[in-house]
Amino acid sequence: MEISMKSIGYVKSSLKQTTFHQDMEISERKRQSQFKYKQTKETFSEVIIDSAYADMLDGVEAFSHILVIYWPHLLTDEQRRLRKVHPMGRKDLPKQGIFATRSPGRPNSILISTVELIKRENNVLHVKGLEALDGSPVLDIKTHIQISDQVTDPVFPQWVHQIKRELENETNQ
Amino acid sequence: MEISMKSIGYVKSSLKQTTFHQDMEISERKRQSQFKYKQTKETFSEVIIDSAYADMLDGVEAFSHILVIYWPHLLTDEQRRLRKVHPMGRKDLPKQGIFATRSPGRPNSILISTVELIKRENNVLHVKGLEALDGSPVLDIKTHIQISDQVTDPVFPQWVHQIKRELENETNQ
Repeated sequence: MEISMKSIGYVKSSLKQTTFHQDMEISERKRQSQFKYKQTKETFSEVIIDSAYADMLDGVEAFSHILVIYWPHLLTDEQRRLRKVHPMGRKDLPKQGIFATRSPGRPNSILISTVELIKRENNVLHVKGLEALDGSPVLDIKTHIQISDQVTDPVFPQWVHQIKRELENETNQ
Repeated sequence: MEISMKSIGYVKSSLKQTTFHQDMEISERKRQSQFKYKQTKETFSEVIIDSAYADMLDGVEAFSHILVIYWPHLLTDEQRRLRKVHPMGRKDLPKQGIFATRSPGRPNSILISTVELIKRENNVLHVKGLEALDGSPVLDIKTHIQISDQVTDPVFPQWVHQIKRELENETNQ
């Protein structure tokens, strides 16, 4: 079944380029992933919604967090056809099917980023922590709702715990 | 910007029909919402991924929760053009812009349901708590990752707290 969508806006961000290659030393990849993770968390972006849709944002300002659903427009066709990847390009971690990861390269590259909503100004959402690159088309905005999005005691495989530990720990490089 | 997607599978569920009309007594709407919420939470569904993509699920079985991204195929064009709604059709709650809600009717109806993954059998994911109706085309599967999806101390407006209280409390009809 073919489904057609139209972007409702775009992202304005200082994040300009992606690194998406698998041929990198593990230590360098770790260092770079940690840097990008911390950088993204502190990045302030604007989500600019087409002014025709501005009134559809009414009420969003009462939420602390929103989901930005966007399209990674800079991916190549080859990246969209990936079937398995080393998580975050880390060759020391076993390859996983694309649907077991959050890799942007996937058959339908609908990316979801849960971010802090700092402020709404008419059709512009000021957010913090959005990993979308500058110019990414936006497909949808949803508010983060506890009963829909929060999970109690989620279980993850070991490789996720390892990446989480490494990303969050300053000293573990 | 026009973006074209192709479904990667579909949902097999006992949930067959939607109720999506605003003209209902508040007490009846509350009762019905609570029934549907409890029913959905206990529903076991199958997410059947096209067998051509089966290997892209490898590794998903190590996660307790996944995000099913799907398309609500039974929505009418009129529903997709809604701009503001009473949350969950509740006329006693003030109208909100579509992007402030999780209403399925929106310019790009990309719905996201975070569900418990019970079991994977090759190209079939057995899940619990999926609100997608029978036959819904599936666009993407992502694993639920704490650092991407969990929020610490989210803030919600009063109407969300009220709905949450009502849905979760057996005695509050």
